[in-house]
Amino acid sequence: MATKQTSTLAKPTLPPKVLAEMERLNEEAAPLQIWLRTRANVPQKTPWHFGAIEKPSYLSEVVGGNVDPPPTYKPSPYLWKWKKIEPYLYRVAEIAPLEFTDRQQFLLLNPGLGGALRVTNTIRCAVSIYKPGDKAVTHMHTPNASRTILSKSGGYTTVDGEKCLANRGDLILTPNGTWHGHGNDSENPIIWMDILDWPLLEMLDCISIENEDPNISINSPPPSIDFSKRHYSAGGITPRFAPIKRGVGQKNSPMMHYEGKTICQKLEELVSEEGSPYEGIQINFTNPINGKPVFTTLGYNAQLLRPGEKTLPCRQTASVLYCCIAGHGYTEIGGERYEWEENDIFIVPNHLWRTHVNLNNVENAILYGVTDAPLLQKIGHFRSQGKTPKGHLIELDW
Amino acid sequence: MATKQTSTLAKPTLPPKVLAEMERLNEEAAPLQIWLRTRANVPQKTPWHFGAIEKPSYLSEVVGGNVDPPPTYKPSPYLWKWKKIEPYLYRVAEIAPLEFTDRQQFLLLNPGLGGALRVTNTIRCAVSIYKPGDKAVTHMHTPNASRTILSKSGGYTTVDGEKCLANRGDLILTPNGTWHGHGNDSENPIIWMDILDWPLLEMLDCISIENEDPNISINSPPPSIDFSKRHYSAGGITPRFAPIKRGVGQKNSPMMHYEGKTICQKLEELVSEEGSPYEGIQINFTNPINGKPVFTTLGYNAQLLRPGEKTLPCRQTASVLYCCIAGHGYTEIGGERYEWEENDIFIVPNHLWRTHVNLNNVENAILYGVTDAPLLQKIGHFRSQGKTPKGHLIELDW
Amino acid sequence: MATKQTSTLAKPTLPPKVLAEMERLNEEAAPLQIWLRTRANVPQKTPWHFGAIEKPSYLSEVVGGNVDPPPTYKPSPYLWKWKKIEPYLYRVAEIAPLEFTDRQQFLLLNPGLGGALRVTNTIRCAVSIYKPGDKAVTHMHTPNASRTILSKSGGYTTVDGEKCLANRGDLILTPNGTWHGHGNDSENPIIWMDILDWPLLEMLDCISIENEDPNISINSPPPSIDFSKRHYSAGGITPRFAPIKRGVGQKNSPMMHYEGKTICQKLEELVSEEGSPYEGIQINFTNPINGKPVFTTLGYNAQLLRPGEKTLPCRQTASVLYCCIAGHGYTEIGGERYEWEENDIFIVPNHLWRTHVNLNNVENAILYGVTDAPLLQKIGHFRSQGKTPKGHLIELDW
Amino acid sequence: MATKQTSTLAKPTLPPKVLAEMERLNEEAAPLQIWLRTRANVPQKTPWHFGAIEKPSYLSEVVGGNVDPPPTYKPSPYLWKWKKIEPYLYRVAEIAPLEFTDRQQFLLLNPGLGGALRVTNTIRCAVSIYKPGDKAVTHMHTPNASRTILSKSGGYTTVDGEKCLANRGDLILTPNGTWHGHGNDSENPIIWMDILDWPLLEMLDCISIENEDPNISINSPPPSIDFSKRHYSAGGITPRFAPIKRGVGQKNSPMMHYEGKTICQKLEELVSEEGSPYEGIQINFTNPINGKPVFTTLGYNAQLLRPGEKTLPCRQTASVLYCCIAGHGYTEIGGERYEWEENDIFIVPNHLWRTHVNLNNVENAILYGVTDAPLLQKIGHFRSQGKTPKGHLIELDW
Repeated sequence: MATKQTSTLAKPTLPPKVLAEMERLNEEAAPLQIWLRTRANVPQKTPWHFGAIEKPSYLSEVVGGNVDPPPTYKPSPYLWKWKKIEPYLYRVAEIAPLEFTDRQQFLLLNPGLGGALRVTNTIRCAVSIYKPGDKAVTHMHTPNASRTILSKSGGYTTVDGEKCLANRGDLILTPNGTWHGHGNDSENPIIWMDILDWPLLEMLDCISIENEDPNISINSPPPSIDFSKRHYSAGGITPRFAPIKRGVGQKNSPMMHYEGKTICQKLEELVSEEGSPYEGIQINFTNPINGKPVFTTLGYNAQLLRPGEKTLPCRQTASVLYCCIAGHGYTEIGGERYEWEENDIFIVPNHLWRTHVNLNNVENAILYGVTDAPLLQKIGHFRSQGKTPKGHLIELDW
Repeated sequence: MATKQTSTLAKPTLPPKVLAEMERLNEEAAPLQIWLRTRANVPQKTPWHFGAIEKPSYLSEVVGGNVDPPPTYKPSPYLWKWKKIEPYLYRVAEIAPLEFTDRQQFLLLNPGLGGALRVTNTIRCAVSIYKPGDKAVTHMHTPNASRTILSKSGGYTTVDGEKCLANRGDLILTPNGTWHGHGNDSENPIIWMDILDWPLLEMLDCISIENEDPNISINSPPPSIDFSKRHYSAGGITPRFAPIKRGVGQKNSPMMHYEGKTICQKLEELVSEEGSPYEGIQINFTNPINGKPVFTTLGYNAQLLRPGEKTLPCRQTASVLYCCIAGHGYTEIGGERYEWEENDIFIVPNHLWRTHVNLNNVENAILYGVTDAPLLQKIGHFRSQGKTPKGHLIELDW
Repeated sequence: MATKQTSTLAKPTLPPKVLAEMERLNEEAAPLQIWLRTRANVPQKTPWHFGAIEKPSYLSEVVGGNVDPPPTYKPSPYLWKWKKIEPYLYRVAEIAPLEFTDRQQFLLLNPGLGGALRVTNTIRCAVSIYKPGDKAVTHMHTPNASRTILSKSGGYTTVDGEKCLANRGDLILTPNGTWHGHGNDSENPIIWMDILDWPLLEMLDCISIENEDPNISINSPPPSIDFSKRHYSAGGITPRFAPIKRGVGQKNSPMMHYEGKTICQKLEELVSEEGSPYEGIQINFTNPINGKPVFTTLGYNAQLLRPGEKTLPCRQTASVLYCCIAGHGYTEIGGERYEWEENDIFIVPNHLWRTHVNLNNVENAILYGVTDAPLLQKIGHFRSQGKTPKGHLIELDW
Repeated sequence: MATKQTSTLAKPTLPPKVLAEMERLNEEAAPLQIWLRTRANVPQKTPWHFGAIEKPSYLSEVVGGNVDPPPTYKPSPYLWKWKKIEPYLYRVAEIAPLEFTDRQQFLLLNPGLGGALRVTNTIRCAVSIYKPGDKAVTHMHTPNASRTILSKSGGYTTVDGEKCLANRGDLILTPNGTWHGHGNDSENPIIWMDILDWPLLEMLDCISIENEDPNISINSPPPSIDFSKRHYSAGGITPRFAPIKRGVGQKNSPMMHYEGKTICQKLEELVSEEGSPYEGIQINFTNPINGKPVFTTLGYNAQLLRPGEKTLPCRQTASVLYCCIAGHGYTEIGGERYEWEENDIFIVPNHLWRTHVNLNNVENAILYGVTDAPLLQKIGHFRSQGKTPKGHLIELDW
């Protein structure tokens, strides 16, 4: 019989009373498929550049006998209702001191994935809060990460020396191998959604995390504002002298900050185009140097559904995690209806047919999406199918 | 609490007495980290081209409460001793009728992976036997697969209409989306090692399997012998009219058969070159059309260690599964010695330092390797480190 | 003895008196290395899509005997002084009716190239004027072409249905295989610089030109304003539903209009960056879909030299044609000084060392450049060398 | 008026009497469109790595006035009849001492190209002879070059330390930036066809040539036999430790020697395949590392026409130079018939329709081809058209 391997979570260090209260809250929040963070992450590996002598890992007991292999978990469609989960964020902020848990946040659990801290087998999603005065230690890790800002404004993420001020609708990247930190020097708490390819890296046993020594801070240069904007914000224009990637990671984008107001403006400018019958007006966020997805593993996009618009059914071998940034509508996933409004988050697992509907006949709706399509494309397994208005099945090339 | 999802193994259909005997054998073989197959595979998905209406998958019970996320399994180094595991193959062949179990084979279990049918989180490895007269239904699936022939000769694999006659040391590919079958019309049983990227595809929930309707057999054209050899066997020469890939899979190699005698001959021809201090004389098997690894996910190679040769330590973020094709030596993995001789199979997990040593001072040793480096390279996480003769750490570009 | 092949210029059709006056002007302007256009272009080939039966071309006399091969022409450095050449443009506009000559323009002649209509062996450059009310027939050709706007504003280029209104500093592309037209419905004449890879295509005998039948106008859709801007102007953001190229040409950029005010703004935003010691603050114009140069053959860029800035010497195997958009300075080319001010055009042939100097200590200078580096990179012959402040030679990777 | 630039040929240095005799021979051979070499090449540029201070080149007189631009030369179809041109090779060998002329050879002149030493505007072709005992100085240049062996055997080319023994049908590459030499230590003269992308490099003014100092010979390592064969001759197998390119040139193939007997064998092995209706059984010679054409500019191939085979008409935007290696047939080019037999060389200019016919009803015919398609593909101008058996026009993707 196998014995469990070490978890990627540290042992709890919260004061006992706090821990007990957190556990009570977790019990209460369980039906909402979120987990209030009570424990810090544990890096699986020593950072590569240390050239450490890794020791083999062994189970304490030998496997064998009448094998009953571990089950295969598949993601379910699910929608996390913002109105129901948001209150827990404030509770966490109130009672769980940041220094014991890495973050004040809850993680989304896909009910199909057996309690794993993931929304698909490749994507982790958390929702975090930073109170005025909060400041997280500058750190670096191998998973790619991003922040999608849900609050109106306040707080920041520093990445590789660039200070990105957070405003609603912003997408801020902290790619693999970049030193980054978070904080809030405004007067209001800031809330954002963290998205990482953590589960994929975990499966590949390639997670390492490193915290900056706060006494040295060599990796926290005096913040440069608007580095991304000044260098990469004009389409088809790239500074010849600027970095084509930042940090020690490989194949990253050098553009860290995609501003919500620009995203919104581009969607509006394109609103009278025909767009795609399967996606409405959709824009991809790309590496400005080569047009590729911002991460090797995950692709980010935003889409606008016009008043009353209903997209045609399509499905992919990739999964998509959505967040409603504006509007009110529903997405039919595998025949079931998931109704969304502002800040609701939902997951469309791969292979399931889906259509989006904007239920508002006056206002546009805007969804942000994150997909593992870039990973599937690289390994030759990305496929996409749509149905024509007459119901015929066609292969799509994206 | 989570309830287990459906397994990727079918329910047992073996006659009760046979099943009981198999279970007894499995109990006996457990310490050897093999599992005698008693159940067929279950496809996770309907083949994509059917455009099926996939239904969402749900757990029977809701997850929640005091989350105890599923453990993270990491592969251990391990060596499967051929002399000890081979006898079980003959026992399986004897008692477990092919029609109930898909295959007569055992699968290798990495003791670190909690009983999962895999040697790393990306690679499955089985050892199969086909008796004279055996014939497996022609089928197709999304995982990439290969056969490395261990017996002297006999048997065949058909792939996309090409009949590849099996001889020791041959590598026969059946890429994603190719119709393929196996059989043995010789007078001796044939034994080979099956290697697949099954666990990766399983994690991505992209496994589909399709069996050919034997009454139609549209996908079993009259066998063409030596298609790969005639079209692709000359380096730097590619027929302009020939397929650049075969089957409906994407990004595959069109070359299906790499012959052991050619592999051996090339290694011998290069034996007096300096080679690599970390790998000796090593050759990669590539897609002849573009020089890329034969699969998008896995790379195959062979290496020759000269009499007494000892390689310098190196390590990668990728794992390598080895099979000793000739000779006698050992590999030190993470400080521990794994001694190998003919047909022994062993796994070097990622991040662990390793050196190879040929213990024979007269004869060459030959190892075949399979690595998930191509996957890691695509997502920007491949790294490789070596030590110089003086022990200095250097980054290697491969 | 060889007999000349047909020229790529048509026979003169100008009224005899006009032609005589134009010839007189050409005689006068000859020392300025410009040629006032008196004849239209002749396409070398029937457009490919007509599938014409091309006839072999023969010389009227056979070559042979004491071979004296045609000389090899190499481009010289040269500067066309705007103040001296501009007046001829108005003379041409006055006397040479547009309908006889294709265009009202003069072409720049490199004094090293034996009278060929080119500034290097790969680049043709003309300066054109369009008077109020002018309208050129919509046409299409295989060479790539661009317009760099020198007048303040007025006029337009339509390309593939997009109407690009011309303003100073704009770069408007009309790639290979796009239907395009020019005109001026403003009240002022418009002047721009035309740059084409005509000589390269001519050498490859791949020039075809096709004029639209004005009675049909299928290729002049109702003009869409700001198509490029709306679709591609935001860095790192690409509409998923939009074309990745336009026209029937291959490997083109879909972005046709790079606005001068945006270019200027980006240069200003980057002015306090360190920039490149060899180029100052330089931005490349790229295909927003893949980050590649806008044409397969030619690359476009703009650079800002800060007050008093002097760049370090460098040289390339590619040539660069410059136009001064703002400021006053000089470029030392192969040891000789070429002083420039607004609208001056100059050529730095390949292999010659050059440094740029902004002679103004208060104002920035801006140069636009066009280079055949993309062609040389594709065939493996691009190289770049610089000198360090101490005079050491180093290889540059761009 | 323009004055001629310097030629790429040196001043004659042959002894006056020899020169006179050579000129007489050239007069005689002129109608055959060959030029017996009487002068050495002159490099246009100092080798790049010397970082030389290149001086601007100027014409002695200024261009201007009534511009009469240099004519545009276009290649004609032409066939050089081996039986008629071969005798001149022996005459050259007899009378023109190697030391004065670089080579004992004649160059092919395309009658459409005005006496330039080229068969198309991108390709130069010569036919050379090396007598027993001949040895050419080891040298290096920027143009890519190849040798196609026409004699039965004898002689060699060394390239980057590899000694390639020449046998009929061999293709030996000496890519841009490789040190190479030629010689003959056998007892028979050796004859081969030299093919270079010289005219293209000349047009780009990127030709440099460097001779090895024979007293140092650092670039003539002790010859390694069969380097190409041992490392790259097996399809889909690449040594991991071996160079991916050789020499200082960029983007070259590391495989230098394609043996005629292997080429012939592959063609024979594929003879019963359907092949291409436009090319019969055709194989491309590729870079074994990445499957690309062996040169960035030129592609090489061989094709077998079965007894009586007649290909369907096709045409390309690229030109092809053919040499008949075996058999007897004709090629119809632009409606005219060019009949070929062993060693005849002929050129099919771009855009002209052509069909190949094997006139022998018993024996196969073999043609070797060299095309500038790789250049045209890189810049987006490669196109290919064919006609169906019913005469319909179709676009071909190769």
